[in-house]
Amino acid sequence: MSSNRTSHIRLTSHPGNGSASRFPIHWDAPTARERGPVIATPNSGADRNAVGAHGGAYSIYRALAISAGAMDPLVRPELHNTHPVVSIGPHPQWSEAGKIVSLDPWGHRVAEDFAPELAEGVDIRPTIAVTKARISLPEIADAIARGRLTVDGKIVHEGGDVAVTKAAIDPVWHLPGIAERFEVDETQLRRTLFEQTGGMYPELVTRPDIAVFLPPIGGITLYMFGDPAQLGDRRFTLTCRVHDECNGSDVFGSDICTCRPYLVHGIEESVAQAQAGGTGLIVYNRKEGRALGEVTKFLVYNARKRQPGGDQAATYFERTECVAGVQDARFQQLMPDIIHWLGIRRIDRFVSMSNMKYDALVKGGIEIGERVPIPDYLVPDDASVEMEAKKAAGYFTPEPAPTAADLAKVVGRDLKEF
Amino acid sequence: MSSNRTSHIRLTSHPGNGSASRFPIHWDAPTARERGPVIATPNSGADRNAVGAHGGAYSIYRALAISAGAMDPLVRPELHNTHPVVSIGPHPQWSEAGKIVSLDPWGHRVAEDFAPELAEGVDIRPTIAVTKARISLPEIADAIARGRLTVDGKIVHEGGDVAVTKAAIDPVWHLPGIAERFEVDETQLRRTLFEQTGGMYPELVTRPDIAVFLPPIGGITLYMFGDPAQLGDRRFTLTCRVHDECNGSDVFGSDICTCRPYLVHGIEESVAQAQAGGTGLIVYNRKEGRALGEVTKFLVYNARKRQPGGDQAATYFERTECVAGVQDARFQQLMPDIIHWLGIRRIDRFVSMSNMKYDALVKGGIEIGERVPIPDYLVPDDASVEMEAKKAAGYFTPEPAPTAADLAKVVGRDLKEF
Repeated sequence: MSSNRTSHIRLTSHPGNGSASRFPIHWDAPTARERGPVIATPNSGADRNAVGAHGGAYSIYRALAISAGAMDPLVRPELHNTHPVVSIGPHPQWSEAGKIVSLDPWGHRVAEDFAPELAEGVDIRPTIAVTKARISLPEIADAIARGRLTVDGKIVHEGGDVAVTKAAIDPVWHLPGIAERFEVDETQLRRTLFEQTGGMYPELVTRPDIAVFLPPIGGITLYMFGDPAQLGDRRFTLTCRVHDECNGSDVFGSDICTCRPYLVHGIEESVAQAQAGGTGLIVYNRKEGRALGEVTKFLVYNARKRQPGGDQAATYFERTECVAGVQDARFQQLMPDIIHWLGIRRIDRFVSMSNMKYDALVKGGIEIGERVPIPDYLVPDDASVEMEAKKAAGYFTPEPAPTAADLAKVVGRDLKEF
Repeated sequence: MSSNRTSHIRLTSHPGNGSASRFPIHWDAPTARERGPVIATPNSGADRNAVGAHGGAYSIYRALAISAGAMDPLVRPELHNTHPVVSIGPHPQWSEAGKIVSLDPWGHRVAEDFAPELAEGVDIRPTIAVTKARISLPEIADAIARGRLTVDGKIVHEGGDVAVTKAAIDPVWHLPGIAERFEVDETQLRRTLFEQTGGMYPELVTRPDIAVFLPPIGGITLYMFGDPAQLGDRRFTLTCRVHDECNGSDVFGSDICTCRPYLVHGIEESVAQAQAGGTGLIVYNRKEGRALGEVTKFLVYNARKRQPGGDQAATYFERTECVAGVQDARFQQLMPDIIHWLGIRRIDRFVSMSNMKYDALVKGGIEIGERVPIPDYLVPDDASVEMEAKKAAGYFTPEPAPTAADLAKVVGRDLKEF
């Protein structure tokens, strides 16, 4: 092992010691150049104006690649030809104070907006990418076979493929705005983020002058159906589902919840809306297991199935809180940002029963028209526990919410019955 | 804003100043109690013996919950009834030096192995959870309808549901072991991890006495078909697919790659193997976009589709390297750990064509029998670019690998054709 060289490593930085970036960020500025580029790469030296790393958690794999000699730490991404396939924005919401605090609204346009700086060698990286795809889902093929959707050769192609525009968005947090959204003190927020992660990024604390943080959490993927240019245009009816990741159902079809069925229903409704001359939108948030992670989720499943009386709607939320310390950590407060980013002020058909998502959107100034529940035939038997518990807790339902007595009757599959 | 209280915050820690844990970790010890518990919670004070945080990136959401007053930072998880639904291990591999370095083999057993410490109030948390599920996939229903699979009432139930045992595994890195696996110097590895993530966790550098790191990256999910107790038993034939996450295909069915089709083929083969008296295993690794993330992936899609000559197999890897600085950051070197954890020494049928996965497993001492390619009828047209490029680069194929001339002929859909 080589000698310990920790003495040469700067463990954190402090303001005022010559390290202020020549690219100050003015978060709500009306243009990209007035706002300033977000620069967080380790090799950008004095230009750096954000805490954290591009690519979030994937920076750890990048570090492994560099450590193993598989990657040059000084390499710059070649951005030629990577620019968005459709233009998104700028929208007025991008510079309305406090509207967008958890992503960089200009993040897909860096190659265009900062061409001179990039040519000069400044390491500015996109935090958003926009591309096109064709998607092929068995459930959509089934909807076509049953006559609920038709092949039109433009949105739904022969063979059942659906044309979409999609976007990937990495989180970029404006810490003063995040603090305001949660109605907490910014200094306290920074300290809690640092301490409760076991000491991640001391610059959260030592650099109050740096307002932007790229946290290593999952981002967002958007799937847009129809013409993306019509998304914020109220003349075109918008159908939208906001979906939080659930790998067990979304990929593997686990029947303990309604995640994939509701997601696919949202896609079908979005396709139908686009075919009817409107637009459709799926927002997919990487927040596995209510942002508590899959280990916690599986621990909760076991506790639910093993409790006296079995897996009951009546104790659904209680079990999560006992194991995780909190019922839900998804914080829908930040979710409306992506809707603002697209310039949307009204969702005509909201394919979600979540009161938390609804409340967050309405509080964020988004009008909601109709709320579209999941059709009963899509709810797996074992998922009734979750569905009824959520209805009783305030989920939207066209029928009356279940009573305590109703809830006690809804019991899921026992562990011995798998 | 309250007064700046940074002076009361310990930005990092150093060895020898009274902070050595009373629970030292002896990584390859033969029992859990000799190995010692992994303790990384911020509220565990002097007991803490690992850098990082439980739940990885989800610790950021936990910090938000605490900051917003929604969660008590001192709360302990109630582990009653959360223990694994089947017992896994201990296997000899758990204490074979260097076999497992990226997960805690004892991570699912903490409630059992450390009951006295937990009762005393020590904050020890599981990093692995094991539960049961029923999964329902349209492609499996189709395989039943076409007679490729049958309902047996035990593994495949009436209606097409499949019984599985599943496990979620959070990463737990033994840094000396990680360094050895990558054949790099540990001090240099720690420094690179710290610096190339923009300064995440200074304790990586300041605490060389702490050997364990819980990185905020995605973990692993296992889906086990048949009796999990037979998984490491060579008398029972094992079919296994190791799959790296691809949200665009796994969830949304994007046709530019073969991810979901190959995953579902792996599930079908696993189910069939279990029905034939063997076992099946899917290893699902959260390494989106070759561990480069989805933003980079979509940027690469655009560069591939826009290059002169269109999206060609001949330039498939080159485009990723130009945009990302590296062709692939998945590092299959760590992948065999989960196979060792299950006590497996031979995979009879390996449902993967990846030479990187194959090489990593063989180097890790795992015997591989047959290699099962994806059937041609499951490869979407537009995914031929990826498939042919990979075959030319060393992917397993029963036919001869394509030549440079062959590759130049394989061109994908143009951006104007979506």
